Amino acid sequence: MSDRILAAVMAAPRQPIEIREYARPDLPQGAALLRTGRSEVCGTDVHLWHGRLSGVPYPIIPGHVSAGVLQAIRGPLRGIHGTPLREGDRAVFFDVHRTCGRCRPCAVHRTPTRCVERRVYGITDPADEGLFGGWSQAIYLEPGVHIARLPDRVTFDQYIGGGCGLLTAVHILERAALRAGDTLLVQGTGAVGLSTIALARVSGAATIFAIGAPATRLDLARRLGADRVFDLNATSVDERLEQVQELTGGEGVDVVVEAAGSARAFEEGPYLARDGGRYVVAGHYTDAGASSINVHTAINRKHLDVRGCWGSEPAHFVRALAMLEQLGPAVPLASIGERTYRLDQLDQALADAESMRVTKAIVDPWASA
Amino acid sequence: MSDRILAAVMAAPRQPIEIREYARPDLPQGAALLRTGRSEVCGTDVHLWHGRLSGVPYPIIPGHVSAGVLQAIRGPLRGIHGTPLREGDRAVFFDVHRTCGRCRPCAVHRTPTRCVERRVYGITDPADEGLFGGWSQAIYLEPGVHIARLPDRVTFDQYIGGGCGLLTAVHILERAALRAGDTLLVQGTGAVGLSTIALARVSGAATIFAIGAPATRLDLARRLGADRVFDLNATSVDERLEQVQELTGGEGVDVVVEAAGSARAFEEGPYLARDGGRYVVAGHYTDAGASSINVHTAINRKHLDVRGCWGSEPAHFVRALAMLEQLGPAVPLASIGERTYRLDQLDQALADAESMRVTKAIVDPWASA
Amino acid sequence: MSDRILAAVMAAPRQPIEIREYARPDLPQGAALLRTGRSEVCGTDVHLWHGRLSGVPYPIIPGHVSAGVLQAIRGPLRGIHGTPLREGDRAVFFDVHRTCGRCRPCAVHRTPTRCVERRVYGITDPADEGLFGGWSQAIYLEPGVHIARLPDRVTFDQYIGGGCGLLTAVHILERAALRAGDTLLVQGTGAVGLSTIALARVSGAATIFAIGAPATRLDLARRLGADRVFDLNATSVDERLEQVQELTGGEGVDVVVEAAGSARAFEEGPYLARDGGRYVVAGHYTDAGASSINVHTAINRKHLDVRGCWGSEPAHFVRALAMLEQLGPAVPLASIGERTYRLDQLDQALADAESMRVTKAIVDPWASA
Amino acid sequence: MSDRILAAVMAAPRQPIEIREYARPDLPQGAALLRTGRSEVCGTDVHLWHGRLSGVPYPIIPGHVSAGVLQAIRGPLRGIHGTPLREGDRAVFFDVHRTCGRCRPCAVHRTPTRCVERRVYGITDPADEGLFGGWSQAIYLEPGVHIARLPDRVTFDQYIGGGCGLLTAVHILERAALRAGDTLLVQGTGAVGLSTIALARVSGAATIFAIGAPATRLDLARRLGADRVFDLNATSVDERLEQVQELTGGEGVDVVVEAAGSARAFEEGPYLARDGGRYVVAGHYTDAGASSINVHTAINRKHLDVRGCWGSEPAHFVRALAMLEQLGPAVPLASIGERTYRLDQLDQALADAESMRVTKAIVDPWASA
Repeated sequence: MSDRILAAVMAAPRQPIEIREYARPDLPQGAALLRTGRSEVCGTDVHLWHGRLSGVPYPIIPGHVSAGVLQAIRGPLRGIHGTPLREGDRAVFFDVHRTCGRCRPCAVHRTPTRCVERRVYGITDPADEGLFGGWSQAIYLEPGVHIARLPDRVTFDQYIGGGCGLLTAVHILERAALRAGDTLLVQGTGAVGLSTIALARVSGAATIFAIGAPATRLDLARRLGADRVFDLNATSVDERLEQVQELTGGEGVDVVVEAAGSARAFEEGPYLARDGGRYVVAGHYTDAGASSINVHTAINRKHLDVRGCWGSEPAHFVRALAMLEQLGPAVPLASIGERTYRLDQLDQALADAESMRVTKAIVDPWASA
Repeated sequence: MSDRILAAVMAAPRQPIEIREYARPDLPQGAALLRTGRSEVCGTDVHLWHGRLSGVPYPIIPGHVSAGVLQAIRGPLRGIHGTPLREGDRAVFFDVHRTCGRCRPCAVHRTPTRCVERRVYGITDPADEGLFGGWSQAIYLEPGVHIARLPDRVTFDQYIGGGCGLLTAVHILERAALRAGDTLLVQGTGAVGLSTIALARVSGAATIFAIGAPATRLDLARRLGADRVFDLNATSVDERLEQVQELTGGEGVDVVVEAAGSARAFEEGPYLARDGGRYVVAGHYTDAGASSINVHTAINRKHLDVRGCWGSEPAHFVRALAMLEQLGPAVPLASIGERTYRLDQLDQALADAESMRVTKAIVDPWASA
Repeated sequence: MSDRILAAVMAAPRQPIEIREYARPDLPQGAALLRTGRSEVCGTDVHLWHGRLSGVPYPIIPGHVSAGVLQAIRGPLRGIHGTPLREGDRAVFFDVHRTCGRCRPCAVHRTPTRCVERRVYGITDPADEGLFGGWSQAIYLEPGVHIARLPDRVTFDQYIGGGCGLLTAVHILERAALRAGDTLLVQGTGAVGLSTIALARVSGAATIFAIGAPATRLDLARRLGADRVFDLNATSVDERLEQVQELTGGEGVDVVVEAAGSARAFEEGPYLARDGGRYVVAGHYTDAGASSINVHTAINRKHLDVRGCWGSEPAHFVRALAMLEQLGPAVPLASIGERTYRLDQLDQALADAESMRVTKAIVDPWASA
Repeated sequence: MSDRILAAVMAAPRQPIEIREYARPDLPQGAALLRTGRSEVCGTDVHLWHGRLSGVPYPIIPGHVSAGVLQAIRGPLRGIHGTPLREGDRAVFFDVHRTCGRCRPCAVHRTPTRCVERRVYGITDPADEGLFGGWSQAIYLEPGVHIARLPDRVTFDQYIGGGCGLLTAVHILERAALRAGDTLLVQGTGAVGLSTIALARVSGAATIFAIGAPATRLDLARRLGADRVFDLNATSVDERLEQVQELTGGEGVDVVVEAAGSARAFEEGPYLARDGGRYVVAGHYTDAGASSINVHTAINRKHLDVRGCWGSEPAHFVRALAMLEQLGPAVPLASIGERTYRLDQLDQALADAESMRVTKAIVDPWASA
């Protein structure tokens, strides 16, 4: 790697992505530099580009989940599994690089995803502070970042195919308390919804339903493990309810996962769950407006559990890797990544993601035209 | 007891309550007859009178929770604690007198309150089938009803002061996973809300907040254990939020309980809970219309648990008795019951309950004018 | 089916099995007669034959889990899924045919496997009361038994290969709170241990370890999904601990399952789990003598959860069927059943099971010599 | 406070305690100096003195839980509740002053009490590194220590009366999932057992049983809330079992807590719990030798949960304070501390604690002869 590193910078919402050149950073003790193999354009990046997240210190280098090769390590460095890391290792890292461990969410409530000082690669660090995003040929891994070797049998494309959606999906299934033999319905067929389907499939779920669009994503949903898919645009709320009821002995499913991010999804979801079931809400990462809900029929009489699910924790990162290592090709996440973009194509990548022309846009910062 | 038993019958919604005379029933093996000491007019009875519950086989004898003395027992009879019951015992019983044990809610999902064949005293049994309600001088306890001796130190008025609200409150605190040291806010100061406050107080809750009206009920809330009360009509949503935040270090409470049954309550409740907190929804026993909710701010980003809570189970009945027996006068539930009515005064009792002139109307079927 | 039904009767412990002839029973409303396709000889049957269970009303017809065809049904009959059953349906049933629903274990503690009036096919009913066991050409399904159609893609041999071990395994994984990505170690490679391995495999477990004997069962363990097996007789406790530690980053596994029924297993198991892990104890169905344990190192300092697991509930029966239906041939349980015996060969079957010459002896009551 | 600070140092096991003089430490940014009001001699200190904990870097300043006044603060400092701390505040702190947040116990398993780099005041820091223990006139609170203002209504003696046992008791009740209305039995009437009784009492427990000795501690147990106490030396295992069964309808209690630290206690405990109950093991902080247990009758058939409980977390510290603040004098913990010792009396204090002449020895480092 030369001493000049190219990175794609989002200077402000709705502005064209710029390519900037960075010097190779000096590494303090315990830090590392990762040569980026693959990063991604996820839904959050589209939200960032729309300026819909508050407190973002533009300009930034987006890209919060990435995979690559450890190019340089300063001092002995251990991964999250406790074993030493070495230069040349294929590696991934947990994108939340700081939580304080001392605020009440961290230390008392055990909800570190609500830490008041949380820092996330690709979102919370200004571009002039360094290589804190994956839309770059190299990523600065500061001391304390949770790093793990990528298991041999897992490709960069498989890992990034799930990407941040993969970790969210692990968290969702934890919140859902999904057990083998449970029926599941997923609202939304973006990266989060598809990753949830893929992980639920290898977790022994019984029938898996999915509601989404467009047709290409529904095909993907089927390939990843959905038994029955509903085209959001070609079926009505009543039709979906009727069919889910019919296929579940009149009950509804054990677990519904909201990964759609629409106000309408939340109005429909509770009725698709059985009485006493669980409804995990994970798609409302930004404000999608108001939902109208009848609390008597949707929640109270159904004895329903509705569980918000925000961010992810190191435990989800480790579990995602354990599942990929064990299950390997049985989790065909690579197919979620439909097209790979160069650094100078990321305006196009954002546009394609925004318009849902691609399910997941992959970033290869070293690809040349 | 003479052979003629008087009972108050609700012939149809909005009709005057009638007094009917019943013959003393023959008891099959395992049945008992309870001389009613106290019964109640609860919120459900007002709903019944308004015709807002579906499938009710009018005419009925209302009154689902009652206390009395075992007048007659046929054959050996054991209570839910396994010990023999005897004529003359002061006794109470669990109002759900049949669940099938075989449907999926009963046998598979362990949610018997959603049993498809559930039968409840005072609600689901027609008056011509017998004395299946507490607005009567005697109640027929069919074989299989869960009966318990009322602990010596618990008065009829204390037990009925909580009444069905007491059992619901036990279920609410179970769903809330309330632990000593948690902060709590209760929306609603009817019998359910007040019982929840009282039980939370003796369960070691830290600060308890209550929102309700009118002033008499707020006084009761304070007496039962609330540290801080908000008059629903004299404070705004914003004022309440601000004050709860201020008194909880800017976080909100650990547990919010909805026991108000209003669509507005559900719109306010999530914001009063801390991130990662729990919100138990128990007041929407009937349809109170649509609530408008922003899923991003109210549930997803807050990582909130929203838990519907429906009906109660024998375990809640037993736990309520255990608490009353141990804690006795420390749970001043009797004060919830403000006025006692004769059988011929139940139109007045319904009107008083409907208008919130009384918090809980108590029924004494043997009182004479 | 003729009017004469042959059944194998265990008259007393250690006595030769007798063949008796029964008349076809009259069916009351809601009852059914199942033509037995397959039953089994499980570890409990060996215990019964050894006289090691208390309160068994010998003579009995053993065989608690079975599969067959509904030969006759009296009156409309619904299965546990709520749909009508019909004569000719391939069917299975939950072996616990009575729990009282009224005792404290049933009604208060929600632990129906500890019901004081529990009745189980093949164990608790005397042979002179009727066809209450699977070692018979037909089984009397009394009103109230939980019956389910066997999914089309599941063969009798697959269902019985797991047999009662399959339901126990579902319960074990529930108690273990096993989640996809967890590592697992199973002590014991009998029907329970093997079923646990098979279900854990399709539930997304990460590395699965097994300790057992003899070699044939270890081969089975591998085929059913174990990644690493230890021959109980060819490895020492220290060797096993060392290797498990080495393969788990020095931690031990997330979940250990005791399905061995030996006092030594319990002495070893806690140390194979990681700190804060879970240890489910399910193999001690009878008294195997005293275990010696250092509570400081084995439980307290490890912050370990040790969870006894007794019997199974209808929910486990339904979940087992859901998993088999969804996963079908991916759960190769049929291979556990190594040899099929006729009714007149059951002395041999007991001897083979006792000596571990076969892992699971299958019973085909209609097979002829 | 002068510039010379006296501290009591344990130079090695079984050696007399020495008084050393320290200079007032320089405070880095974020650190504080606490003028010690009260510290304690707890069971761990006796173990330290016996040399029974491994890896202790003698000489050390013992005393892990203490209360005092913030004498000096360098830079702005916030407490665990998020509010600023000021010199002169009455304060307490969480004794675990470092966990790494990065090892698998911390970051993945959410079991920080098993952190591999855990540091605890009074135990893990050598005396030559500074004032890291409470047997000192002042304690150095390094940056990052969780500090809290002591609620106004809580005295030093009340807080230290519970001391480290108070935090352990909060953890025990969390592991026990104790709910109001549960019955409880506590084995052991030292500081941990007594604190558990006191907290369970104000948490709404139903009947509380205690087993312990000597008579003075049993009196304390009664005063703190036990309904029924058994003198360990005056009753037999069988007598205790019989009486507990009799007083719980033949079932045993919902929750048993082992806070005795004896091998015999673990042999008795499981049988005192009801089937499906919970048994929390917290007293085996050091090796008390082997227990002999019949797994069939004690764990498996009872469907029992046995839960090891190690150390405590910031959440338990905060919850303990919340309970003391709310419940105040209703938790008479001060009575556990029977005698207060000067720094030059700590050999006597250790001897008194060892011989059980005092239940809890309190340390007042500023008391003069």
